[in-house]
Amino acid sequence: MKLLEIYGHGGDLRTAAERFGLDTDAILDYSANINPLGPPQRVMEALGQALSAVIRYPDPAHRSFRQALAERLRLPEDFLLPANGAAEAMALAILALQPKKVGIAAPCFSEYGQLSEQFGAEVVACVGDPERDFKPGMEELFSLLEKTELVFIGSPNNPTGTLYEPGELLQLAAHANETGTYLVVDEAFLDFVAEEKQYTLADRLEEFPRVLLMRSMTKMFAIPGLRLGYAIAHPELIRRLREKQVSWSVNGLALLAGELCLREAAYEEETRRLVKTERDFLMSGVEELGWRTWPGEANFLLVRSAGNLDAATLQEEMGRRGILIRSCAMYAGLTAHDFRIAVRSRSENLRLLQAFREVAGQRGTRA
Amino acid sequence: MKLLEIYGHGGDLRTAAERFGLDTDAILDYSANINPLGPPQRVMEALGQALSAVIRYPDPAHRSFRQALAERLRLPEDFLLPANGAAEAMALAILALQPKKVGIAAPCFSEYGQLSEQFGAEVVACVGDPERDFKPGMEELFSLLEKTELVFIGSPNNPTGTLYEPGELLQLAAHANETGTYLVVDEAFLDFVAEEKQYTLADRLEEFPRVLLMRSMTKMFAIPGLRLGYAIAHPELIRRLREKQVSWSVNGLALLAGELCLREAAYEEETRRLVKTERDFLMSGVEELGWRTWPGEANFLLVRSAGNLDAATLQEEMGRRGILIRSCAMYAGLTAHDFRIAVRSRSENLRLLQAFREVAGQRGTRA
Repeated sequence: MKLLEIYGHGGDLRTAAERFGLDTDAILDYSANINPLGPPQRVMEALGQALSAVIRYPDPAHRSFRQALAERLRLPEDFLLPANGAAEAMALAILALQPKKVGIAAPCFSEYGQLSEQFGAEVVACVGDPERDFKPGMEELFSLLEKTELVFIGSPNNPTGTLYEPGELLQLAAHANETGTYLVVDEAFLDFVAEEKQYTLADRLEEFPRVLLMRSMTKMFAIPGLRLGYAIAHPELIRRLREKQVSWSVNGLALLAGELCLREAAYEEETRRLVKTERDFLMSGVEELGWRTWPGEANFLLVRSAGNLDAATLQEEMGRRGILIRSCAMYAGLTAHDFRIAVRSRSENLRLLQAFREVAGQRGTRA
Repeated sequence: MKLLEIYGHGGDLRTAAERFGLDTDAILDYSANINPLGPPQRVMEALGQALSAVIRYPDPAHRSFRQALAERLRLPEDFLLPANGAAEAMALAILALQPKKVGIAAPCFSEYGQLSEQFGAEVVACVGDPERDFKPGMEELFSLLEKTELVFIGSPNNPTGTLYEPGELLQLAAHANETGTYLVVDEAFLDFVAEEKQYTLADRLEEFPRVLLMRSMTKMFAIPGLRLGYAIAHPELIRRLREKQVSWSVNGLALLAGELCLREAAYEEETRRLVKTERDFLMSGVEELGWRTWPGEANFLLVRSAGNLDAATLQEEMGRRGILIRSCAMYAGLTAHDFRIAVRSRSENLRLLQAFREVAGQRGTRA
């Protein structure tokens, strides 16, 4: 069976549609971790009305969005850099800081290693233990900080969903200061965590001038097609990243959408409630099948199927049923039985679980 | 007087609005070279209807747009790389090919030098002579090709509007083959030239594997806010550029708009007619003031004011009248009296010329 993730990621509906002979619109996508509520309606209406603004160049300094972000985060503007998706922010960190070696804690988002190699760095990995929710120990991370010039961690981590505790983040940041290593914390899914402010070093970056936080606007606000993320770091680091950014790399509609999304606090609150409830629901449903899950904190779940039903087969069987899941067989530290599902609405989750049951039943692996 | 082009480019309406106390919507923008017809209406309607597609990641391989582009240009798909604006395509060329020295022919688009320095290359410039329309001689360009690893030329060149003849392009490409230098031809404004196919090496890139062509979709189709450009080159070069591109760097709406714009042949034809007529009209009007212009082939004109009225003063005076022009005083090879104006519609051009006459009259420099 040919790998579906030919471009290294979930959410590639075009490839899935071709593979399964479906229309992209007809696919129920559990492979990309996007807010199941869809984009806030007010934002979409305003975007529709502002569409004619594409006749102008984007503001090269992202002023309105950056100001709105600074107010929302209660940070000075010079701690912030809007980017063409969190992926660009990560690329800028590597381009600006030029680490020779980059440390990653597998399994993790494939772009950490991909971007590092793309821009000439060698990747050094430690691998998490499934019995400790794949979270590497502090001693392993300390060792990574000592052996490399830049370390990526995800919090919550993709695809495992595990979160670093505030105390752990402080220890890592302090050690990064000591070793002179940059610590990049990918917080792309942090806004799905209820007490998010507790789990970030955003307010302490004066103390930790080697820490960079990477955020995404596209998961919570369901606008991945527009591309919008940002970096938070000490102004000196932000200045260095900015120096590598290509003019107008953040498009005008993304900047406008970002500004509007920041006003949608109630929508964010509702999303967090929905995600928590539905994540628990999916977890129970999956465990009833005898499949293993881990206690993720984000809007997705890592699952390990049982028996002879591996992730590739399950993906194929689900694809035939119009549902796309993300195989995780290619992640370092994971197995051929591992896959990831997004957390979606109840009716969709019922459809997913029903399809899982069918496939598991046919293959005789139901617990 | 403080420079208005604080971010190095025209079209910065936000800065201009703050400077002149105007609303951005009220500014008549002659500083950015955008099709005065605005985006094709069919494209805007289709974009409005497809807005909900932002809930999906962009196609990481740009398949639909690239196919449409290949058909339109009658080139195999592997000669093409869609990019987040032509600026990204240029950045990818530098990141992928890693020239130590980059040659430019001043005056030219500031990004050639800017991007080169941003990514660690040294810039070597030759400077054009105003008596030869600022076009460097072949011997000067040959010398640049010999002294550097990559040379940028613009055709038509920004801000002068001058075009390289087919014979000149062939000579340069052949010399680039001999010296092993990459020749990047910025064709961002080529689609405003009537016989554009004669003035490009697009069909001969098998012969010239060191030539890269940079194109923009945002000037002709008036969608700079969306960001869309592309590179044309030998598949081996395209592969190297692609390796440096960050995942999903071209947003989904840009890809969709690009595909739709390629169907607007009549709109392009109408634009070329309008631009030719109005460029001639503007040229006469400006020359009546005793100001000098050069025979540009694109949708803009380089102008040199006379007497004690320099570009900064003129920009300030025009700004007070709600009209934004691009000072070119900071371009190597140009003077404090040089500025650039876009070619717009007749009614707008009448307003521009009226304002020029007022200012020139007040300042006593009218011929």
